[in-house]
Amino acid sequence: MKTIGILGAGQLGRMLALAGYPLGMRFRLLDPASDSPASLLADHLTVDYADKSALERFARGLDVITYEFENVPVEEVRYLEKLVPVYPPPIALEKAQDRFVEKSFFCELGIPTLRFTTSFSDGRRNELGFPAVLKTRRMGYDGKGQVVVHSETDLNNELKGRNMDELILEEFISFERELSIIGVRNKAGEMGFYPLVENHHCDGILRLSLMTKNVSSRLQDQAEEYCVTVMSALDYVGVLAIEFFEKDGHLLANEMAPRVHNSGHWTIEGAVTSQFENHVRAVSDTPLGSTNPLGMCAMVNLVGSLPDVKSILKIGGAHLHLYDKTPRPKRKIGHVTFVEKDVETLQKKLDMLKEIVNV
Amino acid sequence: MKTIGILGAGQLGRMLALAGYPLGMRFRLLDPASDSPASLLADHLTVDYADKSALERFARGLDVITYEFENVPVEEVRYLEKLVPVYPPPIALEKAQDRFVEKSFFCELGIPTLRFTTSFSDGRRNELGFPAVLKTRRMGYDGKGQVVVHSETDLNNELKGRNMDELILEEFISFERELSIIGVRNKAGEMGFYPLVENHHCDGILRLSLMTKNVSSRLQDQAEEYCVTVMSALDYVGVLAIEFFEKDGHLLANEMAPRVHNSGHWTIEGAVTSQFENHVRAVSDTPLGSTNPLGMCAMVNLVGSLPDVKSILKIGGAHLHLYDKTPRPKRKIGHVTFVEKDVETLQKKLDMLKEIVNV
Repeated sequence: MKTIGILGAGQLGRMLALAGYPLGMRFRLLDPASDSPASLLADHLTVDYADKSALERFARGLDVITYEFENVPVEEVRYLEKLVPVYPPPIALEKAQDRFVEKSFFCELGIPTLRFTTSFSDGRRNELGFPAVLKTRRMGYDGKGQVVVHSETDLNNELKGRNMDELILEEFISFERELSIIGVRNKAGEMGFYPLVENHHCDGILRLSLMTKNVSSRLQDQAEEYCVTVMSALDYVGVLAIEFFEKDGHLLANEMAPRVHNSGHWTIEGAVTSQFENHVRAVSDTPLGSTNPLGMCAMVNLVGSLPDVKSILKIGGAHLHLYDKTPRPKRKIGHVTFVEKDVETLQKKLDMLKEIVNV
Repeated sequence: MKTIGILGAGQLGRMLALAGYPLGMRFRLLDPASDSPASLLADHLTVDYADKSALERFARGLDVITYEFENVPVEEVRYLEKLVPVYPPPIALEKAQDRFVEKSFFCELGIPTLRFTTSFSDGRRNELGFPAVLKTRRMGYDGKGQVVVHSETDLNNELKGRNMDELILEEFISFERELSIIGVRNKAGEMGFYPLVENHHCDGILRLSLMTKNVSSRLQDQAEEYCVTVMSALDYVGVLAIEFFEKDGHLLANEMAPRVHNSGHWTIEGAVTSQFENHVRAVSDTPLGSTNPLGMCAMVNLVGSLPDVKSILKIGGAHLHLYDKTPRPKRKIGHVTFVEKDVETLQKKLDMLKEIVNV
């Protein structure tokens, strides 16, 4: 019986625990908030990451530590690593927490990405042209910390009074769509990949991830290759998500997340082994499970307010997941998954859901 | 957000909670043992059923109460029912706890069952012939409390010093196989049924439940009809399991369980909606989910000792479920499920598992 520590007790921690219990795992969670979605279903500590003695209490008796979001402070994770193995390796956090470091890492590995600069004082910023996207290097998620600048004046206005060391400017491209891949690697180096899914956002928040027939095997292979490159470079253990923009049939890496990912929630019912179970398998040094999909799948996020649950459950094959979170504008409080035999049936189910939920 | 109370915190309570959390449910468990399989993953009270004030504390704030085994004391359940709705209805417990009451109930409803008697002093006992099976009327499970008697002398020896009011004598038949059906009914009267599965025992303990091609639609219809009859008679809410013997192409009801059932564990991965989720849906007054199977399924119990987990996880498509129980002879500590596209592949997987586990 292994006990896994999870930094963070949000919905991802919750779904990791739900997937890990059947494998005989036990969990201990650490989160600064006391009413987190996972706190009811596992042993948990409500403490701040800065509290070193609490970190030591947390680590005591754990077999391995993992995390459910990429913005846990690296220094504290490094501290924990001296006590208990931490997977994915903290180096992955360092690469993913800072957009500049992340994009430089993609470049270094030869993975195409958007052009970017952090040199606001020289000519390089002009090479990107306008419009361009000004982003905070750290802590951005769900579209937060991003602004499109349309001109030199626009940019200068946005930069006023801000610390330029904390910002990155990226080229603005019109891409065909966003796709993401979820890969997993265990300590033995065994790897698995889920099919690319297409992601649709609204107000910067993921609303819909779905499998489509419009993903060629060339595109899938390409995404897997990039994923292998990143995982091998980091001697990675666990689930890794990479988001791509597709432009003119090519993939441009946008960002990566060293954790289970919202665009992989469909795998709970839609794949032989879910991303959550495979993450638990990987970090606990067991063989990976098959990543094969069980049909054409789609996942719709429930954002902001709780829709009529009974109406959702009446849709045949609707798999409801609520996170036990208080509804609040722009907050992800749950999701719904469909696994259907073909794209047409899937679309029909999505249309039924759209009568109840804003997709 | 509803909070469901569960009487019992064993593996069934554990799997109910794991299935119910995604629906946004919360759980409170009551069990006389403190180290029960479900105790780690939900709020729980370690108290005796006889402790009325503890029952009141347990019930406070609950929306509904259910139970995970049929031997909870009915008096206490009736007491709880005055405070909070209890599903399945306690009358189902009364029918299922006593083999004589249960078999009489089947007879009353016109459901074929084995011949039986509790009249040990008159001639009726001889009508059954020998061999016959002497059983305790209550608390028998996993083959406990049963003995085959081969003659009048044998029977008299077994009866010596025992309270005859607590015993039942059943005819001994050689049947072709045991089959079981899992049905579910919600408050609105909506019903669903899973396919019949074939059950194989060893030492009275279920080892293997599997779908086979040798179940005619006539047999399935018959089983569903009996299930409907029982559920309607009891105004039933929740999951109900009925075990049958098949003899000469006909079904004889052996016993029923007013709860989720071991022979339905395969539904976690093998059906669109598992028996656990459908039980939670039923008792919380929400629409039922589809009971359609996703392939040819089999479930193997892990009994007594923990096999090599890594070897099991290496088998493609093996879904492992451990209950976090200390291994002990004859104790069910987990199960493994396969969902395959055809019977041949299923058999191949079972053969692979048999190299690791005693099936």
